[in-house]
Amino acid sequence: MRVGVLTGGGDCPGLNAVIRAVVRKGVQEYGYEFTGFRDGWRGPLDGVTVPLDIPAVRGILPRGGTVLGSSRTNPLNERDGIRRITDNLAALGVDALVTIGGEDTLGVATRLTEEYGVPCVGVPKTIDNDLSATDYTFGFDTAVGIATEAIDRLHTTAESHMRVLVVEVMGRHSGWIALHSGLAGGANVILIPEHPFDVDQVCAWVTSRFRASYAPIVVVAEGAVPRDGDLVLKDRSLDAFGHVRLSGVGERLALEIEKRTGKEARTTVLGHVQRGGTPSAYDRWLATRFGLHAIDCVRDGDFGTMVALQGTNIVRVPMADATARLKTVPPELYEEVGVFFG
Amino acid sequence: MRVGVLTGGGDCPGLNAVIRAVVRKGVQEYGYEFTGFRDGWRGPLDGVTVPLDIPAVRGILPRGGTVLGSSRTNPLNERDGIRRITDNLAALGVDALVTIGGEDTLGVATRLTEEYGVPCVGVPKTIDNDLSATDYTFGFDTAVGIATEAIDRLHTTAESHMRVLVVEVMGRHSGWIALHSGLAGGANVILIPEHPFDVDQVCAWVTSRFRASYAPIVVVAEGAVPRDGDLVLKDRSLDAFGHVRLSGVGERLALEIEKRTGKEARTTVLGHVQRGGTPSAYDRWLATRFGLHAIDCVRDGDFGTMVALQGTNIVRVPMADATARLKTVPPELYEEVGVFFG
Amino acid sequence: MRVGVLTGGGDCPGLNAVIRAVVRKGVQEYGYEFTGFRDGWRGPLDGVTVPLDIPAVRGILPRGGTVLGSSRTNPLNERDGIRRITDNLAALGVDALVTIGGEDTLGVATRLTEEYGVPCVGVPKTIDNDLSATDYTFGFDTAVGIATEAIDRLHTTAESHMRVLVVEVMGRHSGWIALHSGLAGGANVILIPEHPFDVDQVCAWVTSRFRASYAPIVVVAEGAVPRDGDLVLKDRSLDAFGHVRLSGVGERLALEIEKRTGKEARTTVLGHVQRGGTPSAYDRWLATRFGLHAIDCVRDGDFGTMVALQGTNIVRVPMADATARLKTVPPELYEEVGVFFG
Amino acid sequence: MRVGVLTGGGDCPGLNAVIRAVVRKGVQEYGYEFTGFRDGWRGPLDGVTVPLDIPAVRGILPRGGTVLGSSRTNPLNERDGIRRITDNLAALGVDALVTIGGEDTLGVATRLTEEYGVPCVGVPKTIDNDLSATDYTFGFDTAVGIATEAIDRLHTTAESHMRVLVVEVMGRHSGWIALHSGLAGGANVILIPEHPFDVDQVCAWVTSRFRASYAPIVVVAEGAVPRDGDLVLKDRSLDAFGHVRLSGVGERLALEIEKRTGKEARTTVLGHVQRGGTPSAYDRWLATRFGLHAIDCVRDGDFGTMVALQGTNIVRVPMADATARLKTVPPELYEEVGVFFG
Repeated sequence: MRVGVLTGGGDCPGLNAVIRAVVRKGVQEYGYEFTGFRDGWRGPLDGVTVPLDIPAVRGILPRGGTVLGSSRTNPLNERDGIRRITDNLAALGVDALVTIGGEDTLGVATRLTEEYGVPCVGVPKTIDNDLSATDYTFGFDTAVGIATEAIDRLHTTAESHMRVLVVEVMGRHSGWIALHSGLAGGANVILIPEHPFDVDQVCAWVTSRFRASYAPIVVVAEGAVPRDGDLVLKDRSLDAFGHVRLSGVGERLALEIEKRTGKEARTTVLGHVQRGGTPSAYDRWLATRFGLHAIDCVRDGDFGTMVALQGTNIVRVPMADATARLKTVPPELYEEVGVFFG
Repeated sequence: MRVGVLTGGGDCPGLNAVIRAVVRKGVQEYGYEFTGFRDGWRGPLDGVTVPLDIPAVRGILPRGGTVLGSSRTNPLNERDGIRRITDNLAALGVDALVTIGGEDTLGVATRLTEEYGVPCVGVPKTIDNDLSATDYTFGFDTAVGIATEAIDRLHTTAESHMRVLVVEVMGRHSGWIALHSGLAGGANVILIPEHPFDVDQVCAWVTSRFRASYAPIVVVAEGAVPRDGDLVLKDRSLDAFGHVRLSGVGERLALEIEKRTGKEARTTVLGHVQRGGTPSAYDRWLATRFGLHAIDCVRDGDFGTMVALQGTNIVRVPMADATARLKTVPPELYEEVGVFFG
Repeated sequence: MRVGVLTGGGDCPGLNAVIRAVVRKGVQEYGYEFTGFRDGWRGPLDGVTVPLDIPAVRGILPRGGTVLGSSRTNPLNERDGIRRITDNLAALGVDALVTIGGEDTLGVATRLTEEYGVPCVGVPKTIDNDLSATDYTFGFDTAVGIATEAIDRLHTTAESHMRVLVVEVMGRHSGWIALHSGLAGGANVILIPEHPFDVDQVCAWVTSRFRASYAPIVVVAEGAVPRDGDLVLKDRSLDAFGHVRLSGVGERLALEIEKRTGKEARTTVLGHVQRGGTPSAYDRWLATRFGLHAIDCVRDGDFGTMVALQGTNIVRVPMADATARLKTVPPELYEEVGVFFG
Repeated sequence: MRVGVLTGGGDCPGLNAVIRAVVRKGVQEYGYEFTGFRDGWRGPLDGVTVPLDIPAVRGILPRGGTVLGSSRTNPLNERDGIRRITDNLAALGVDALVTIGGEDTLGVATRLTEEYGVPCVGVPKTIDNDLSATDYTFGFDTAVGIATEAIDRLHTTAESHMRVLVVEVMGRHSGWIALHSGLAGGANVILIPEHPFDVDQVCAWVTSRFRASYAPIVVVAEGAVPRDGDLVLKDRSLDAFGHVRLSGVGERLALEIEKRTGKEARTTVLGHVQRGGTPSAYDRWLATRFGLHAIDCVRDGDFGTMVALQGTNIVRVPMADATARLKTVPPELYEEVGVFFG
């Protein structure tokens, strides 16, 4: 039995922990051999492989990124994509694929399994925690931890100068990172994509905070949008090099807060720092257990299946479930946390 | 409505986050007043209180320990304990109690509610994660994170000198911290109280590890015991000052490994470092949500109830359930992790 | 004897450690009393004070920011500034001032002492490490540590996607933070204000790095400028709200690298995270020793003097020396580090 | 030109940074080739080598430990030790040796150079910071940082339970780590080998601390000794396995404090955690610069020389100077810090 492994989409702390667990258990307990595919779906598409055995996974548990590389290549958009993949798997003698990725990667894996009989097992990965069918995804806890530490640090600088500090965190379509890090960091305002914000309300919270002699911290997910349309979030003008000027919601919101409240405001955009580096202990635990259960799915011939966390258990769910809809922050949870606003 | 709050038992990162959430929501949403009791049950027993209002909980979210102090005082063992408590509560006008603690503290709260009509709501607390009826307790994630970081650091010193490093972590009755930190830290042996260990087996793992040119890390819970009785874990002799000499399982095991394998072994006992300091983002999230839901129990008159985590939801369970039995590591989970041993 | 204390300019980890040391030694060893002035020179200017005694400095050692608040108020620019200060000091019975700040704050203190006879002692503070007459200033080590940790994290995300990552760190006039964190973080290019950069050279380093199958990290101080003027660093156009659009050198450089090399590039601007939060152990040590020696200067009547680090010793230098010229990165040091470029 | 590199003695964060800098500059700027020797002096003694070139040093900058391995082997104690080394160097074509180590390793290098004409350059290494002729050694800052973080964490647990916490840190012959981490961590008592302590004085400080409603933290270097001989620090009795029972000064002192003050005391022994894992940014900076200058010594034929830090400069000193005497904490520095005791 030869098993292929690939990692697709944006990188995420814990990918290496999954790879290591899949290989360690596959080799030691089931006697499998492995083929690593480079750069997500590009690997099986172009037949680009890397050796994957026990020595290859030594010492990778605490390392961020992925030793297999990643890409956003989608074989469904490539000419002859499916055929090239099945040909390459056959040529390499690969009998099953462990596909580690988010909505896109698993969407491809679902179709490959269901429509073309390629035996795939899925491992959910998204730093944003917005995949359905699993309580949490690995990488999320690390990102929340990094964002929280940054917010902790910004409190003292906000207080020393009595300024507003706006922190833009990841989360294009969901506010999980903003909600968790904002709550853990003691933010006074948390803005998420699921709940369009009212700039005047934000300014009212900011002002009331100053009135109580505190300096407010505003945590905003990169995908949060204003309710009333009075905040132009994307500037479509071109810069000197013909590039579209991008300026995130954090920077725009800070400018607007300054304008409306007369208080100094500063922005910090955490960016890629949130998704790199060593995974937290929790993410190593979750990623490792996902890997151990994924290889068990292979052994059981349970393809089209994805491993998922439910409570403290790792379970198996249809891969299609995970990609069916985005898991967003429920309104009642956002309201629960709202007691700390202002 | 006046609500008393107390924290009992060993300290745990996240206690202050609970206190803050209880007070913030209680004051802001329900208009309650609060009385802080000092040092666990000693507070209501002796009528020792501290002011507890919005200013008192400012800035305590990221701080370890408990602003209320703690103790292991058990009023059931005190003369007139129950009566003194009910008298003091009446005198102070306290209508309900939020009791934050582990098995002992909540056991007392259960009896006070059920047998003496004192309206108590429970918030589970144990750094060891061994309380039933909740998926996790706050403080645990912080402890696992600290232990994992220590194990990460010990790897390089083990490799540089090709030594065995034995790391003793907390866990008198359960192996959760050892299991999680050992897995996350890439330990080669993990020993837990639930599964008596065989010293020869440990030495075999150690030896096989060296044979593969690696230096082994052994993580052992402080309550782990040898299967075969050939490791004397407590030395009953007295020292020069008449104190009983204590030497933990980690130190004894290291000596024994040296003796049986001929390899140099060193021990690190992490001790209290695991339970102090700023809580992880996860623990702040969990503790805060516990606090928000506990004050809702008070509002609903839902006494004898404890808040608990199930999946991603905070639910209410009978307090008695939490203390009925210890939540230990299930054998199948220990076995699952065993693929990484040796 | 009554001693006033103030902190001026941008905040910096370690300010509280200085304040604590000044007060602890002043009270315990010399029996002094203290007056805290709020918000830098605004305190003595407007007579705004805070109590400053042993209880007031309890627990502040590990906390970022400054319990006295800070501002950039310059009394030399205020009508009757000097007279208002001398009047307030007299009215409050303040016999000497410990002034903790950078170039501006100490420049004022120098003139107050020399021209108006106000007895000031200086403690140097700049996160940028660019004050002359002292080997290091506190806060710098913390900033370098935070930037280095961010660079560590960015390596894995760069490698996983084979992208260029540009990290913009603090340093408007000097490249100390960029140089230290870039070297410690294993950056492949480090750009500093002291040495105008050549965009084509940067692109050549980036390209050669990719050729060796690595993903390059470019660390750039916020004040670094291109040698050849072909990179427009400030966009003077106005945005929808009439604000001047600001975009830092990091963002502009990334766009230019993409354009010239055809490789994907991303920017991270660390911003205020670098100057907030708990000071490193080194900064606590240095700040505390500065404080202990500053109060000794007061005792000795050694005014117009600043404490400074030389080797491992704390010495006294004329305050005027510190502000005479900026301490920039010497060319030979930049060249020494250049072996790691490309 | 072929240069050998070895690392001797206890491991220390920053060793890999030195190795990388030596090789990067040696290969890129001077065209040298390198031979890595395994396990300190054992390598040249037994002719055990590892490949050492640019790819071999990739990615090792942030890693603790040493890729070359280490040992305490002393060739002067081996039969024919000197001859075996000179023979092996000749056979391997090694023209010069970069020796990275502490007192012992450099002592051997000094004699090899002076008495036997083996061209050695020294790089000072001791986590204890007790080598003369250099302001600091790499590894020390990392150790102090880890110890300080532990002390930070212990404060909250001490306060919650009003206990004494004794923290034993490294430092057999000098108190640098205790002094720096104790000061940075806000300890109430710091005990160092250079200044024998009086148990009654310690207890008086502890008691006065409790009287002010604080819980004391006592930091003690492993080599600290009581002045009056009333604390038996080593128990010579044998345990059940015939091993000498070892119990450190921390544990003994805690027992004694309990006995004399009636207060609960707990001990934490940080142990090897202090010397493992990723180096701090400062240590990476210092180690890298040491490496860059060491290879310049080789180029200049400046053998018998050691690189050292003086202020912010890397200088060259005779290797013999470094090992001539231990650099201990001067009494006036210990006294300076004493203002925080009690």
